[in-house]
Amino acid sequence: MTYDFSQKVLALKPNAIREILKSASDPGVISLSAGNPAPDAFPVDAIKEISERLLRENPIGVLQYGISDGYTELRNTLKSYLKEELDIIKEDDELIIVSGAQQVMDLTAKTFLNEGDVLLCEAPSFVGALNTFRSYNVELVGVTVEKDGMDMSELEEKLIKYPNTKLIYTIPNFQNPSGVTMSLEKRKKLCELAKKYGVLIIEDNPYGDLRYSGEDVPCIKSFDEDGIVIYSGSFSKVVSPGIRVGFMVANKAAMAKLIVCKQGQDVHTTMWSQMICNEFMTKYDYKAHLDYLRALYTKKAQLCMDLLDEHVIDKGITYNKIEGGLFIWCTLPKHIDMLTFCKALTEKKVCVVPGNAFLTDSALYCDSFRINFSTPTDEELKKGIEIIGQTLDEFNN
Amino acid sequence: MTYDFSQKVLALKPNAIREILKSASDPGVISLSAGNPAPDAFPVDAIKEISERLLRENPIGVLQYGISDGYTELRNTLKSYLKEELDIIKEDDELIIVSGAQQVMDLTAKTFLNEGDVLLCEAPSFVGALNTFRSYNVELVGVTVEKDGMDMSELEEKLIKYPNTKLIYTIPNFQNPSGVTMSLEKRKKLCELAKKYGVLIIEDNPYGDLRYSGEDVPCIKSFDEDGIVIYSGSFSKVVSPGIRVGFMVANKAAMAKLIVCKQGQDVHTTMWSQMICNEFMTKYDYKAHLDYLRALYTKKAQLCMDLLDEHVIDKGITYNKIEGGLFIWCTLPKHIDMLTFCKALTEKKVCVVPGNAFLTDSALYCDSFRINFSTPTDEELKKGIEIIGQTLDEFNN
Repeated sequence: MTYDFSQKVLALKPNAIREILKSASDPGVISLSAGNPAPDAFPVDAIKEISERLLRENPIGVLQYGISDGYTELRNTLKSYLKEELDIIKEDDELIIVSGAQQVMDLTAKTFLNEGDVLLCEAPSFVGALNTFRSYNVELVGVTVEKDGMDMSELEEKLIKYPNTKLIYTIPNFQNPSGVTMSLEKRKKLCELAKKYGVLIIEDNPYGDLRYSGEDVPCIKSFDEDGIVIYSGSFSKVVSPGIRVGFMVANKAAMAKLIVCKQGQDVHTTMWSQMICNEFMTKYDYKAHLDYLRALYTKKAQLCMDLLDEHVIDKGITYNKIEGGLFIWCTLPKHIDMLTFCKALTEKKVCVVPGNAFLTDSALYCDSFRINFSTPTDEELKKGIEIIGQTLDEFNN
Repeated sequence: MTYDFSQKVLALKPNAIREILKSASDPGVISLSAGNPAPDAFPVDAIKEISERLLRENPIGVLQYGISDGYTELRNTLKSYLKEELDIIKEDDELIIVSGAQQVMDLTAKTFLNEGDVLLCEAPSFVGALNTFRSYNVELVGVTVEKDGMDMSELEEKLIKYPNTKLIYTIPNFQNPSGVTMSLEKRKKLCELAKKYGVLIIEDNPYGDLRYSGEDVPCIKSFDEDGIVIYSGSFSKVVSPGIRVGFMVANKAAMAKLIVCKQGQDVHTTMWSQMICNEFMTKYDYKAHLDYLRALYTKKAQLCMDLLDEHVIDKGITYNKIEGGLFIWCTLPKHIDMLTFCKALTEKKVCVVPGNAFLTDSALYCDSFRINFSTPTDEELKKGIEIIGQTLDEFNN
């Protein structure tokens, strides 16, 4: 049978990164392409203890249906935590639990975007979120990322040029893939522009807790007095991605629709996962765990930058200094074609992600690639960056 | 801010049953309205043992990112099981893991339906699925359920009347809410009609393993030579709903799009849940567990029918004999208004689900209500049905 697909999904293609990751899992390949937490980042002992206790003391609670809004105890824990740490739960806001932050993108796109509507995002941006938006047949328009976040003049130009813009998608902290953090000034400006043009903002913040140097910048949601910011948080990078727990904060009137869509997708998020998160946040020293993660990744980030300085920096590659998150964005000198370079690396069994995968249209030109430093071992990182250096030599000669 | 919702979700309202369930959770209320497995249906000891072992032997596998198609071992286990038990995995078919069968409805609607397209379903049908279809702004058209399933003449009439029909949604075994099982003859006819009119079928089979009397009827998918049937299965009623694991079988060409939408929604299904299901199916006597469930529910179903025969049958209520599943569909005599009757029950603290909740338009007339017999205790069932009998007396006088 020849299938008659909906207009929404007609042009949808498999996620480019997921395809790259498949070849990166071959034995002998050094993968600098993933975005996984380090294996020693997981609080295994705590999760073991919590899981045993939950299944002993409250097995029916773990196994029976839950409510779509999420496990009430976890919702309350998160509301207090976010209010105190980020000042983002206002009186008119509601928080629900979702099955990973990816679901925030899906629910928001579904609830607010008609086919053909425009969504503005950073260029480059997180390909997983872009693919979700694509699956609703939305037009993606990129805004250049500068050292301190989106170019605000370009953003306003595009808001004017595309009057059917409904959403602005941003990762303000340690952006994936660029690593850039949006300045306080730009966050305020972004809110101001969104309000002026009647556009909503998705603030996607999976890496906010993973700052290794510099000062935290207030959340965009904390300036939001009008219910224009939908905040997305995740346990994937700070507890575990395999448990699939994220959360979203939005104005109650918006949430009323979002929750019906959530119910239609998966009824509710896995109870075990939600309960693990709540117990870990309330019965363990959650902040000490975050300190541990920051120490772990600070070391890895520093090693990565030291290696880049030793092996590639004087051969023409520039990179954004790592202040947090899991990625480093490397830009090649003008005379080297990025895709040819990445292909040469693959032949030497080193996998990175070609930067064009993160653009609104992967046919656009890009001179950068993304390295992940959280997943590889120190030895893999060392060997991988040495090979990048050797390959650069070959391209420079 | 006044939100400008997408056309898709503009008319969406909260799930009526979920609202009823909220009031049913008040203390002192006898809830015959839920659709939950019985608390003693869960294989708690096995899940405890499996979970401890998984977290001891393979914690990183449980906690790290998985692949969107699902945990490979569980996919293989299910493929063998379904091939052997139901003869439904053909060479061109693929199976993926989803976060509960609800996600099958969502992914299928998204992949194949444009706004305004028509979906034909049984009238009455499962409100959760109908709400998912509604969330894509699809027009729902009901087809009368007879004692042996959908009225096939009416189905063909509607296929002709609505040429933009894209999908037929059916629950062929122990349908929710009617309890009806579609006959073999009608299953074959359904396939034939779908093929003739170029329409896909979703075969939703959450209760297939829960037959208490009579003979199993072959799956619709087993007759499918053309890739027109999308099969939906679930662990919710046979292992646990709180773990959120279901699966879908579809032709590979359809699956290629469905999987991209799955990835966009939640990246992948919770690893712990998937691993629990696989271990339970392969290291335990899964068929003995299903026998145990059938014995448990056969007793409850018989009690429910005995009580109905004792307290209500000679007062004008008729019901469909329970052959499987979790529900019984009770039809009131002509002179009693169903909604008024259900309201009177609520005032006496007995909750049932008014039948109109299961129609394509809840404003349509319905003379039936749904009782669930799996969740209440025997005492609650007894007291609840006694009160239904007393209330009938009042309405009959």
